[in-house]
Amino acid sequence: MPTEHRFTFGLWTVGNPGRDPFGGPTREPLDPVDSVKKLGELGAWGISLHDDDLIPWGTPGPERDKIVARLKAALDEAGMGVGMATTNLFGHPAFKDGAFTSNDRAVRRAAIGKAMRAIDLGGRLGAEVFVCWGGREGTEVGTAKDPRDALERYREAMDALVDYSLAQGHSMRFALEPKPNEPRGDIFLPTVGHALHFITTLARPDMVGVNPEVAHETMAGLSFHHGVGQALWADKLFHIDLNGQRIGRYDQDFRFGSEDLKESFHVVRLLERAGYAGPLHFDAHAYRNDDLDGVWEFARGCMATYRALAAAAQRFDADPDVQEALAAASVAELGEPTIGGDDPETLKAEVDGLDALAARGYGNERLDQLAVEVLLGVR
Amino acid sequence: MPTEHRFTFGLWTVGNPGRDPFGGPTREPLDPVDSVKKLGELGAWGISLHDDDLIPWGTPGPERDKIVARLKAALDEAGMGVGMATTNLFGHPAFKDGAFTSNDRAVRRAAIGKAMRAIDLGGRLGAEVFVCWGGREGTEVGTAKDPRDALERYREAMDALVDYSLAQGHSMRFALEPKPNEPRGDIFLPTVGHALHFITTLARPDMVGVNPEVAHETMAGLSFHHGVGQALWADKLFHIDLNGQRIGRYDQDFRFGSEDLKESFHVVRLLERAGYAGPLHFDAHAYRNDDLDGVWEFARGCMATYRALAAAAQRFDADPDVQEALAAASVAELGEPTIGGDDPETLKAEVDGLDALAARGYGNERLDQLAVEVLLGVR
Amino acid sequence: MPTEHRFTFGLWTVGNPGRDPFGGPTREPLDPVDSVKKLGELGAWGISLHDDDLIPWGTPGPERDKIVARLKAALDEAGMGVGMATTNLFGHPAFKDGAFTSNDRAVRRAAIGKAMRAIDLGGRLGAEVFVCWGGREGTEVGTAKDPRDALERYREAMDALVDYSLAQGHSMRFALEPKPNEPRGDIFLPTVGHALHFITTLARPDMVGVNPEVAHETMAGLSFHHGVGQALWADKLFHIDLNGQRIGRYDQDFRFGSEDLKESFHVVRLLERAGYAGPLHFDAHAYRNDDLDGVWEFARGCMATYRALAAAAQRFDADPDVQEALAAASVAELGEPTIGGDDPETLKAEVDGLDALAARGYGNERLDQLAVEVLLGVR
Amino acid sequence: MPTEHRFTFGLWTVGNPGRDPFGGPTREPLDPVDSVKKLGELGAWGISLHDDDLIPWGTPGPERDKIVARLKAALDEAGMGVGMATTNLFGHPAFKDGAFTSNDRAVRRAAIGKAMRAIDLGGRLGAEVFVCWGGREGTEVGTAKDPRDALERYREAMDALVDYSLAQGHSMRFALEPKPNEPRGDIFLPTVGHALHFITTLARPDMVGVNPEVAHETMAGLSFHHGVGQALWADKLFHIDLNGQRIGRYDQDFRFGSEDLKESFHVVRLLERAGYAGPLHFDAHAYRNDDLDGVWEFARGCMATYRALAAAAQRFDADPDVQEALAAASVAELGEPTIGGDDPETLKAEVDGLDALAARGYGNERLDQLAVEVLLGVR
Repeated sequence: MPTEHRFTFGLWTVGNPGRDPFGGPTREPLDPVDSVKKLGELGAWGISLHDDDLIPWGTPGPERDKIVARLKAALDEAGMGVGMATTNLFGHPAFKDGAFTSNDRAVRRAAIGKAMRAIDLGGRLGAEVFVCWGGREGTEVGTAKDPRDALERYREAMDALVDYSLAQGHSMRFALEPKPNEPRGDIFLPTVGHALHFITTLARPDMVGVNPEVAHETMAGLSFHHGVGQALWADKLFHIDLNGQRIGRYDQDFRFGSEDLKESFHVVRLLERAGYAGPLHFDAHAYRNDDLDGVWEFARGCMATYRALAAAAQRFDADPDVQEALAAASVAELGEPTIGGDDPETLKAEVDGLDALAARGYGNERLDQLAVEVLLGVR
Repeated sequence: MPTEHRFTFGLWTVGNPGRDPFGGPTREPLDPVDSVKKLGELGAWGISLHDDDLIPWGTPGPERDKIVARLKAALDEAGMGVGMATTNLFGHPAFKDGAFTSNDRAVRRAAIGKAMRAIDLGGRLGAEVFVCWGGREGTEVGTAKDPRDALERYREAMDALVDYSLAQGHSMRFALEPKPNEPRGDIFLPTVGHALHFITTLARPDMVGVNPEVAHETMAGLSFHHGVGQALWADKLFHIDLNGQRIGRYDQDFRFGSEDLKESFHVVRLLERAGYAGPLHFDAHAYRNDDLDGVWEFARGCMATYRALAAAAQRFDADPDVQEALAAASVAELGEPTIGGDDPETLKAEVDGLDALAARGYGNERLDQLAVEVLLGVR
Repeated sequence: MPTEHRFTFGLWTVGNPGRDPFGGPTREPLDPVDSVKKLGELGAWGISLHDDDLIPWGTPGPERDKIVARLKAALDEAGMGVGMATTNLFGHPAFKDGAFTSNDRAVRRAAIGKAMRAIDLGGRLGAEVFVCWGGREGTEVGTAKDPRDALERYREAMDALVDYSLAQGHSMRFALEPKPNEPRGDIFLPTVGHALHFITTLARPDMVGVNPEVAHETMAGLSFHHGVGQALWADKLFHIDLNGQRIGRYDQDFRFGSEDLKESFHVVRLLERAGYAGPLHFDAHAYRNDDLDGVWEFARGCMATYRALAAAAQRFDADPDVQEALAAASVAELGEPTIGGDDPETLKAEVDGLDALAARGYGNERLDQLAVEVLLGVR
Repeated sequence: MPTEHRFTFGLWTVGNPGRDPFGGPTREPLDPVDSVKKLGELGAWGISLHDDDLIPWGTPGPERDKIVARLKAALDEAGMGVGMATTNLFGHPAFKDGAFTSNDRAVRRAAIGKAMRAIDLGGRLGAEVFVCWGGREGTEVGTAKDPRDALERYREAMDALVDYSLAQGHSMRFALEPKPNEPRGDIFLPTVGHALHFITTLARPDMVGVNPEVAHETMAGLSFHHGVGQALWADKLFHIDLNGQRIGRYDQDFRFGSEDLKESFHVVRLLERAGYAGPLHFDAHAYRNDDLDGVWEFARGCMATYRALAAAAQRFDADPDVQEALAAASVAELGEPTIGGDDPETLKAEVDGLDALAARGYGNERLDQLAVEVLLGVR
């Protein structure tokens, strides 16, 4: 088993029972401890979890501790870690109008309280990152929330949570997970860009990064690898959610690599080149018409495809034809400063050279076809 | 003519000759001076322009001054202003691989030089804002540009332009105009959020804001009024491009209000409530099967619909049923701080109240139906 | 109450408990008899239902009859009818791979059997139309089903059902309801066009039409009013599902008129002009953050907006400015035959007149702006 | 060079000069005779063309014959054929409101005449298929055309053209090419399904099939391989346009296989299994930032990727693990009749077995992962 890739799976991913808006579950619930064991056997580095994945809503206090201890023992036995912890602020009906941005102040307060409890849990389990996905932070009715008020409340909540975590002595960093819509008509902080900007307005921006998800950026038709690129450029890629999704559809959360292999390749190549060392988290689930065997095929497939794409990226960059094509496209030249101390008048004078500069080609057809051929394994 | 709304039209909007990817022009070019005159008669406050709209590429130096003086005289005579100036960094074939982010360093230098010349022009015409739309800053081929390099070059260019403008003594502020795709497969800074974040990385973030466009955010299916809301919240709405667009389609640039009347209403209501005082710029054009009469109907329609929506927003907010519905939805309560100095343990204890908080409704159906009925003029 | 519009609501629409993929129900289930009563008070003409809406899966035989009799009595008392009946072939986990097109032949047989039972129920309740929505007839995995086999099985099932219904002496016509995706990755018969074609391959095409739904065509970004137009042109509009939806999103089923008012106006105007006399069925539900009061506001709103749009359509067509604009756009001329017996050589000679024909405009900006102003109630 | 795949390229594809809505051409026009020669060297079977690709609009009569003769000689010398001919009914400004469905009857007549002339040309060149793409047959303004009138005129035109072609003694079949939008806001016959239905309403449906294009179905987010499947099922796949496109974007016409490799694989596998023997037409063009070398890389890449995918399809179907997975998914069972003469009561009784039928899984994760691994060349 390669150890360099720290693959993780949410308890809710392999444990997904196959419920959807049009039908009930098709699979039995999984005991988290069984999931840990099986994922360890398949070569995963760790797991992630919502508070309610582990401790069902309404579990009395004393039982909670036993549940946590039992999971911890299972993780220790399997030699596995916790990539991230998070809180479920979307399932309970009280969150139907939002959590941190519910119009009801009492709901907002309880939401912050629930997140604090989940931070306690994450800290206890040694989670590296605490993810905040604001799935209900939005609206279907434009007049129901002033977006400026909503962002103000969102900021207040995030600042309080970071303060709380630091006060408890936790080292966890936070990661915001953007999504454009579903389950709300429009969700606040819809893309990686909106989240990156929001973070700059926080009291402790250093503690908060993003958790981009393939499916979420792709729903809006945005380039996932460009979004991840902007996060890396800003040193804000604290976590990543890998899966498969078609543009302009319901949230599909398919097996990583099952959709858009070339974009998946670009993402993997970027992560590898950037030396991203955080968890590679598969936030996905098996097709609803599969049984438990299919669930483990799904988990195996996510990891196998990531490894195959990482190998393809290496093959690509080592290929002399590719190197020639990259040079023909002047790819490295984009890394060079444009101005180099020259003064404005010099630059203005160079405008007259534009007609001559139009002649060259950039060899992009060849470069992309080489990527396709590497991907297809025919070179 | 109401004077409170400063409506502007780009020279390229009413002057659009009706060319598209599948057919040539259907209308004669317009003389900018004629456009100014006619727009003034129709009640527009001013115009906006690309450098090349006014001064065709290749015009010799001495003639340029005459052209500028002639436009200035026409503006003065009509009592009109220049809302924004910008530079065309997408039409010339040398920009086929990008301008500030072309892989060819010489192209990048000429692009910065061309923008500097356009800043000179904008300053001379008294433009309030200098817009940068990076239509060619992107790629179809993921391996052709490292997105981190591209953003680095983009930043270098923007910093240089702001420096240059300040050094010339101009008071113009800058506004970045995001767009997700077209004419490139994927464009860097695809949404308002990505641009807002990028601005925080600049040397002089105070000088740079955003110019959101209905069509551009809508192409990606994002809520335009939420995007504008985040820009206003950040004090970064320096300019706005109003038009009409269907989600998930080619860049349509239809007449403002011709698509999604309810979202248009939300945008206008937000602008009015926020006291936005900048130019209201219609970046749109007449349908290709219309003649010159249709062009002026188009311009008249943009302004008429904005005014009708502003009036509807006033009617909405003054309606006692609406006020009741806003209260039932607790809309104002979202403006109140959530925590108010309470300590974490208090908030954590309130989690146990969630079940009781789930009972209430938020009256969103009624509130939205009231908006629809105000919009339809039946209340 | 106007009687000319026969508004209907599915039991599952007002009865929708607010469950979604990320959260449980927020409203109590409704007793179908209470729904009937309340809908009657609000002015609905009738209801529609799935077999399982009325008779929960697993109800023993003798109880079924009592349930049906109780509903029938409630309908009679309210003076209401049944617009359509259908069968739920998507909720039971056995249908996870499809119903008529499941790869498992035993599932396909049971699916046809269940539809036959539902036909019995529909016949007993006097339903006008029997709708078939094949929500699970699709796949996420392209190699899992040959689409030709799937269509063959779909045809076999539809032929069997029509035969069965006629053999039982029912007068119900059938209507296929297309949808592009969700809950399956891709659904067979994704649009009105695919369904209209499929119908022409059936043994009794005269008995089968379509049931287009706003949300379903709109998810794919298609013009709903063009789809309805093609169905009307083919005399195949046997039923219609009205609701609200944004392009490129999860299946939203919002209140009719809550999204894209202009397209909604085009649809209503087309239905009114075509003299469509079938049920106007609202297949939608209240926002999840609303309580039961919101449900009835939702139902009232659907009907109120339809009536307001029908009134706007009348106002539009009666407006002298509109009539002038329609003439300027040569709208009626599209109704005139093009050739009129002329021979090919005559037509070929007319090609040389194209340059002259390019000069005229079609006044589309004015025409559309008039529609917007009628819609906004400012004319 | 394999001979079994008859690859063709439109003259306008390799000849595309790189113009787009935001910039002028970046490449010189190509002489059709040079294109023929070069395509022949690269292994293409033939070409396709619009009338105006070969004979520029306005060319005097006598010169036209010389141009045609010159092309014919070049084709003969290269041993190449003409896959399809078509007519350009979108470029001339007279078609700005439509061609067969323009509101102006004189335009409609000239459009039919122009198509007749193009049929003459196609017949002379021995084209197998005559394609009709109605790019301008649509509208941006819903009130400007009654869709029923438009379809009636469309039918009249198609009937006249088929009659004309048969009367001239041509053996060409016709193929309708659907597209949802661009250059019009909404185009009539937006998908393969709508076109297949429309064909059933024609006087000679046997003479008319469809020409599905990857980009066009994909713009609407529809499964291309399902659309092609329905066309094959109906014996109506007369021609096919292969290229690359992202969902929900402007018409991209990228190199075949450059987007969505898995869907491309499904399409190729379906074509190969169905024994489709018509032209495999690449309706695409090189990236705008490429020069002429890039154009030939583009053409080479289209064919290379098709061949690689065809080889992958063979490898997939020959793999014993795949065969096992196909059996586990009961793929062949979908080819078996469902009912087999059983009576309704038997089928109705089988409904009670549904609970038991829910237990099995369909092994779809494994099946799809095998497809991914075959595609990636790792099995």
